Amino acid sequence: MEKFNIGIIGLGTVGGGVVKNLPNFRDTVNLKKIAVHNLNKKRNIEGLDESLLTDNPYEIVNDKDIDIVVEVMGGVNPAFDLLKTAINNGKHIVTANKELLAKHGEELFNLAKEKNVVILYEAAIAGGIPIIMPVKTILRGNKITKIDAILNGTTNYILTKMDEDGAPYEQVLKKAQELGYAETDPTSDVEGFDAAYKIVTLATISFNKRVKIGGIYREGITKISDRDIKFANEFGYKIKLIASAKLDDNGRADVRVHPMLVPKDHVLAKINNVTNAIMLSGKPVGEIMFTGAGAGEMPTASSVLGDILALCSEIGKSDFPLPMMRCNHESEAERIPIDETVNRYYISLDTADTPGSIGVVGTICGNHGINLSDILQKGSKEDGTAEVVVITALSREKNVKSALKEMKKSNAVVKINNLIRVMN
Amino acid sequence: MEKFNIGIIGLGTVGGGVVKNLPNFRDTVNLKKIAVHNLNKKRNIEGLDESLLTDNPYEIVNDKDIDIVVEVMGGVNPAFDLLKTAINNGKHIVTANKELLAKHGEELFNLAKEKNVVILYEAAIAGGIPIIMPVKTILRGNKITKIDAILNGTTNYILTKMDEDGAPYEQVLKKAQELGYAETDPTSDVEGFDAAYKIVTLATISFNKRVKIGGIYREGITKISDRDIKFANEFGYKIKLIASAKLDDNGRADVRVHPMLVPKDHVLAKINNVTNAIMLSGKPVGEIMFTGAGAGEMPTASSVLGDILALCSEIGKSDFPLPMMRCNHESEAERIPIDETVNRYYISLDTADTPGSIGVVGTICGNHGINLSDILQKGSKEDGTAEVVVITALSREKNVKSALKEMKKSNAVVKINNLIRVMN
Repeated sequence: MEKFNIGIIGLGTVGGGVVKNLPNFRDTVNLKKIAVHNLNKKRNIEGLDESLLTDNPYEIVNDKDIDIVVEVMGGVNPAFDLLKTAINNGKHIVTANKELLAKHGEELFNLAKEKNVVILYEAAIAGGIPIIMPVKTILRGNKITKIDAILNGTTNYILTKMDEDGAPYEQVLKKAQELGYAETDPTSDVEGFDAAYKIVTLATISFNKRVKIGGIYREGITKISDRDIKFANEFGYKIKLIASAKLDDNGRADVRVHPMLVPKDHVLAKINNVTNAIMLSGKPVGEIMFTGAGAGEMPTASSVLGDILALCSEIGKSDFPLPMMRCNHESEAERIPIDETVNRYYISLDTADTPGSIGVVGTICGNHGINLSDILQKGSKEDGTAEVVVITALSREKNVKSALKEMKKSNAVVKINNLIRVMN
Repeated sequence: MEKFNIGIIGLGTVGGGVVKNLPNFRDTVNLKKIAVHNLNKKRNIEGLDESLLTDNPYEIVNDKDIDIVVEVMGGVNPAFDLLKTAINNGKHIVTANKELLAKHGEELFNLAKEKNVVILYEAAIAGGIPIIMPVKTILRGNKITKIDAILNGTTNYILTKMDEDGAPYEQVLKKAQELGYAETDPTSDVEGFDAAYKIVTLATISFNKRVKIGGIYREGITKISDRDIKFANEFGYKIKLIASAKLDDNGRADVRVHPMLVPKDHVLAKINNVTNAIMLSGKPVGEIMFTGAGAGEMPTASSVLGDILALCSEIGKSDFPLPMMRCNHESEAERIPIDETVNRYYISLDTADTPGSIGVVGTICGNHGINLSDILQKGSKEDGTAEVVVITALSREKNVKSALKEMKKSNAVVKINNLIRVMN
């Protein structure tokens, strides 16, 4: 087999994992250069040849001998410009950069097509779990219409610990930060951005239409209280941050990231800690699920290696690149606005210390066409207010929002604590 | 894209599913002929063109215009001769025939290589679950060393119902037969043959060495009693038919199919009814799991279609066939005999109505170097004998067998009810 030169941009967790595993593939891959942020940083990477390091990533994307650029630095800048330069220089790309793909994938994939190079990105979605290549190859005979996934390990860890320990969000976040499961600035994870980047790309390849990051509904886990988790349990649910994508019969896409109450006997309710899971429904395959480590040095390296080896066995062949290596879409998926979607809802309220408060809540819901399937009230607080939790039947989001607006105005409701969607 | 002619041999459940889905791929695939057993049988397959039917499958394998033969008839004869004829005639093969691959895969793959054609078989293992192609492509950078899988839906359904209903095996089997989940002659499923065929091929591609069906240890579920399931539950386990394959540090393979006590919090304990699951451990990926429908018309059709489309996009290209489409192995995996393996064991005994019976059992175990981790006895039967259930610490199989032999001879043990291995 021919041997290819690769350059790696970024030597953090993922880059380190790739470097440690590359010696097993010496016959195929020659590691020529590695770009790092700080040349003086002490690194503990077995087998690392420090003479390959540079602090100028443009040395890699402009190196005429490098065939494949492995981008594992993350973030939009300078990764975007680096990859455009690499592609313009005729290099193939393997990347784990979900943010860049979600924000500028279309431009990058179009440029790659123009320059007859390939961008592979198995590692960008769900770390070590094989999902991109299966969807593009062995599942190709399917029309995929539904994805429900846990794509962010940090938030799944936090929600798991909140559930297990009955602890509040802030306390568990702090613990997760100490353990290295959450970053110092946890925004990208806890506000659902990371999961949103991933579901956008996964929906694009699954639906075979470009799904843009712009229109997707996104909500994180920062407002989930330990009481929500307690009530959810009493109703028979676990709370998970679910990234979902659905295609309706008219080809319109409903793509979102938000917390959900997941029935306890649903498989996604049992995915705990940092594990990721992707549940995919298609015709004819039905429902299949993939689970595994969604992040981490070694799992992510597995996917990067898989892509590198796939490229190495294809580059230079007469039919290269294979159609499945492309990610170009002429049409963009029409979107269903969140207000038009139909869901079940968990609503937590503080009702006033007056007779008939629950009756008022029920009446307002009724006036907006919302049926309630479960109601829970456990005594009253010292100030006389009572925490009431309800779960609705299937209702249109805009009706629920109108009802909540009306409740806020009424004297019967003191405070709306939370609104969380419920998985059927 | 070029258009290819295919012929399908077998129009049962899987064949029907393929025929129903092929119209979506008219641009690529032209269905030219379908071989059936009985031309007069009334069939209810949407879109079936009855003029394509023949009752002579050799018309397909000898048809000079057919590029791909899809074999979904099952069994060794006449499938083996048909596929050899097809390969000799230069046709590519897509098959769902796990028995044929397990028994004659080596010969078929070697013949295919000689004739420069390809045999794909995603549908042969775990129906609709993508496993063969992921292992051969995106997971290629891994050294896979461990597989634990539930590969037979019939037995998983029976064990699930025995557990849920507390019902005995024979009764649940009868129900499964009525529902069509078990065949009139259930031997292949309930004795573990079906799972054995699958794990042999999966182990071969995962370990990249030929694993022959001959040496694998196989045991079915017919001896599992409702009492075993009850005791397992009391100890915190579910009983599952597990197909496993492990590669030790010396490259020796331990491949087997037998029932196991699986800890309740292990994900495989939660795979119920006809669902299949494959848990795979490799370096660097770690542990990943694939679940879904392991059989059935539509799921299996998904895998057959995936293979057909993969072939269609490759046939005739300069580099065809891709190395990953091969399944030839120069070396055969050395095997670890079951007697040499180390496991934990659940042992159910009837002990005699004499003081010190349990002491004798404990002493015999101790003499054979077997430590007990759990012991359960619940009162005595009317005849004075007592059912005693123990779970051992890790012990060598041959020592456990010697101990059981000694117990059988002793007056303290009236009967050995069952021996089931326990998953760690």
